Amino acid sequence: MKRHLFSIGLITSFVLSAVAHYSGIFNSTLQLILSCIAIIYVAGFLGKATESVAHYAGQRLGGFLNATFGNAAELIIAFFLVKEAKFEIVKASITGSIIGNLLLVLGLSLLVGGLKYKEQSFNVKLASHNGSLMLLAVIALFIPAAFASTLTPQDTSTLSIVVAVILVVSYLLWLFFSMVTHKDILTDEAIEHGEPAWSKKLSIFFLVLATAMVAVQSEWLVGTLEVFTHQYGLSELFVGAFVIAIIGNAAEHSAAIMLARKNKIGAAVEIAVGSSLQIALFVAPVLVLISLMFGKTMDIVFTTFELVAIGVAAIIAKSISQDGSTNWYEGVLLLVVYCILGIAFFLV
Amino acid sequence: MKRHLFSIGLITSFVLSAVAHYSGIFNSTLQLILSCIAIIYVAGFLGKATESVAHYAGQRLGGFLNATFGNAAELIIAFFLVKEAKFEIVKASITGSIIGNLLLVLGLSLLVGGLKYKEQSFNVKLASHNGSLMLLAVIALFIPAAFASTLTPQDTSTLSIVVAVILVVSYLLWLFFSMVTHKDILTDEAIEHGEPAWSKKLSIFFLVLATAMVAVQSEWLVGTLEVFTHQYGLSELFVGAFVIAIIGNAAEHSAAIMLARKNKIGAAVEIAVGSSLQIALFVAPVLVLISLMFGKTMDIVFTTFELVAIGVAAIIAKSISQDGSTNWYEGVLLLVVYCILGIAFFLV
Amino acid sequence: MKRHLFSIGLITSFVLSAVAHYSGIFNSTLQLILSCIAIIYVAGFLGKATESVAHYAGQRLGGFLNATFGNAAELIIAFFLVKEAKFEIVKASITGSIIGNLLLVLGLSLLVGGLKYKEQSFNVKLASHNGSLMLLAVIALFIPAAFASTLTPQDTSTLSIVVAVILVVSYLLWLFFSMVTHKDILTDEAIEHGEPAWSKKLSIFFLVLATAMVAVQSEWLVGTLEVFTHQYGLSELFVGAFVIAIIGNAAEHSAAIMLARKNKIGAAVEIAVGSSLQIALFVAPVLVLISLMFGKTMDIVFTTFELVAIGVAAIIAKSISQDGSTNWYEGVLLLVVYCILGIAFFLV
Repeated sequence: MKRHLFSIGLITSFVLSAVAHYSGIFNSTLQLILSCIAIIYVAGFLGKATESVAHYAGQRLGGFLNATFGNAAELIIAFFLVKEAKFEIVKASITGSIIGNLLLVLGLSLLVGGLKYKEQSFNVKLASHNGSLMLLAVIALFIPAAFASTLTPQDTSTLSIVVAVILVVSYLLWLFFSMVTHKDILTDEAIEHGEPAWSKKLSIFFLVLATAMVAVQSEWLVGTLEVFTHQYGLSELFVGAFVIAIIGNAAEHSAAIMLARKNKIGAAVEIAVGSSLQIALFVAPVLVLISLMFGKTMDIVFTTFELVAIGVAAIIAKSISQDGSTNWYEGVLLLVVYCILGIAFFLV
Repeated sequence: MKRHLFSIGLITSFVLSAVAHYSGIFNSTLQLILSCIAIIYVAGFLGKATESVAHYAGQRLGGFLNATFGNAAELIIAFFLVKEAKFEIVKASITGSIIGNLLLVLGLSLLVGGLKYKEQSFNVKLASHNGSLMLLAVIALFIPAAFASTLTPQDTSTLSIVVAVILVVSYLLWLFFSMVTHKDILTDEAIEHGEPAWSKKLSIFFLVLATAMVAVQSEWLVGTLEVFTHQYGLSELFVGAFVIAIIGNAAEHSAAIMLARKNKIGAAVEIAVGSSLQIALFVAPVLVLISLMFGKTMDIVFTTFELVAIGVAAIIAKSISQDGSTNWYEGVLLLVVYCILGIAFFLV
Repeated sequence: MKRHLFSIGLITSFVLSAVAHYSGIFNSTLQLILSCIAIIYVAGFLGKATESVAHYAGQRLGGFLNATFGNAAELIIAFFLVKEAKFEIVKASITGSIIGNLLLVLGLSLLVGGLKYKEQSFNVKLASHNGSLMLLAVIALFIPAAFASTLTPQDTSTLSIVVAVILVVSYLLWLFFSMVTHKDILTDEAIEHGEPAWSKKLSIFFLVLATAMVAVQSEWLVGTLEVFTHQYGLSELFVGAFVIAIIGNAAEHSAAIMLARKNKIGAAVEIAVGSSLQIALFVAPVLVLISLMFGKTMDIVFTTFELVAIGVAAIIAKSISQDGSTNWYEGVLLLVVYCILGIAFFLV
């Protein structure tokens, strides 16, 4: 029943968004809303397909698939932005995804969970490792920015590419560490997956289909956003960091909050923090490497505002999660920082 | 006996300071010294009156009264500075109060306590929460400064007001959290209050009287300071951050050090850290909102030096207190950082 | 047998390097290589002599001797650089020593140890204290830089000297704390020393001889480096921070890695972190005070790049060591940060 509703929503939103895109009969606001609804649906579809394929692939490869496809929607949206050399909006949306996960998703999960349970606790070891990885991510994004002002554009590109390669390697080693050599230490309450929705063949077909749908929708969304941004005089920084990021992470938001309500705060934290780590250590550097294909290198130099936002989010999230126990007020703290950042970005 | 001595000191210092203010027969240095002695006495009187009223108000409301009236003297001094639009000196004294509490008061407490007891320990949960709140305070003061350079003065005002409102709300939620929903987790050795000094009616009368005396003295002090500062060529930054701050916190200093000597290090830490949190999350934003009444908005944009001082103090205090155990050398570390900051501010 | 080989290496490398220096028949690259080999040998000799004298001096004075002579080679190299007023390269090499110890030495130890043992653990108390001290060091180097831009050169000198004196006093108090008042709390697995290699008299003679040899070699090395740097167009920043630092710390590198392989990770961490603390809290300020003798004060103002490097290294090392347990991936994280910094410094 629930699955049928989802299918209907998926198809309807996709068709409506296609009509809006090709006919041009709707105004830009309505077109944006339709695009957003459609992308949330196709991202959800992609998530289900990934999970189903991961189930058939076995635990280890499945974990890897889940981890790397988890941010596939964001990666695809960003791919089309990179292709059009819209590097500023790409970096803004990377920033937004990181702070959205660390502050909004994590904050809402802690608040919602904390209103139901006085205290919730999770594996401290995992929190400590996540904290160190997050630090690496912040450092890796911070160093190029600190040095860029005295480098030639050529050297900045070189530095960006080298840092990107180093980060991807670090990320792959992290997967190896957490899924192979130290799997037992880091395991917390597992995220429940249940039975796969479809047969093996159908799952693979749906994974391909969903990826294609996300790709198409992303391209339409990028076009719509451009019109909308210009029309309302919003800055690309704000749109990238708040609008795109919230849409791209809609799936994580609902999943994490549902888990927090079921007292599985460890799994909720893992989704929020794990997702932001993936963006910083995998999606961002991969986009730099992808930009090489299009002939114009995207550097990894973030603006001061973006670095402030990422740094601040990482520090407060680390401070709150390091004792392995959470409550509603810690959720409030994260949301407060998110609000302050949001207002500052809006005013810039 | 002791109480009689205090009463005599209070009245004598108040009268002498009044004579100095109205006759103008003393030179500015002597006038400043008299003002400082008088303000320490009236601040002490206000503290006693608050405690006595809090006793009659019952535990919960009493805790609230203690927490919000705890920095009443500083709030009143700053009120007169805001009224005269001396925003720079207000922000310098906010900075000074924060670092004075985190470095000087906490440092002396740890050192004095540590010289008597090899190790002293306190509730780690409380330290962890205080640390996260301190981070919020630093972040909330840091973000406007990071963004201010690219904002119009109008937008800077807007951002300051919004941040101020958010901080006051966060502070009230924190009081609710620590005094209502999670009271049991955060309780450490209680700060002993003993029997109230006066009857209920007299306590309320003294609270009003003491508040009025602090207000009068503060206005006189601000006038005297101005003359003194100009005469000796001291910077407002130094006077605000070190002279005013030390005077305004004299009561906390002596209380915390006495508690440390009695091995009640938890209560001493609570006074020092709690007081600096109050300044950052309550006094500072309230002053911004008060400035609106006088028609000229005080922004919440601190100078780089002030942010460096606050950030540095918060980081080292957090690092030292997070293991819930203290010793004399940790006191030395805090005092050393205070000295380095003091010299740097003096030279600027 | 092993000792004979060392003696032969020591004498041969010293003689070859002397020939290279006085004859000038080798090209600058070969001369540099010979100098480096020779300095590694004489630094090793100085280390052995110090340890042997320390043995005869008794535990307490011996610990002090070990702690202060531990970085004697670096201090002597830097002495000659200070004498020639090459302040930039001195500060670069101080930076390099700190990050080399915190990232390269610690990273390799954790990686090598972690590949053999799944998890290694050490005294958390010590890690916590080391972390706070490291923070003090970062703060003490950071504050002068933050304030320097608005100070006169005269005031910058004053600030540097005062900070230097404060740091040396803090360091001496730390030795008193860790070796006298709180010795028992901080003791981890002791670093094995074994029987002294020589008699008491011979040890003292060798200590004097080794110090003299290090001094001579250091002077030669500085000359050679200058030629080499100019010839290959390398920046003094890169040479100071990476080349000199790696050479000067060769002894620590091998010692720490050997200990990690023997599962004595506590001792390895102590060497790496302790050594970087010594550089920051003792060697750097002493060099400032030494520069006074030569009539031209070296200020303690580091460049932004150097501060970024030191700050980043301290933060990630603190984050990784604070749980008192290590694994191979934490080693990878430290090495990754070292690589990123290395590339950035090379490109500047």
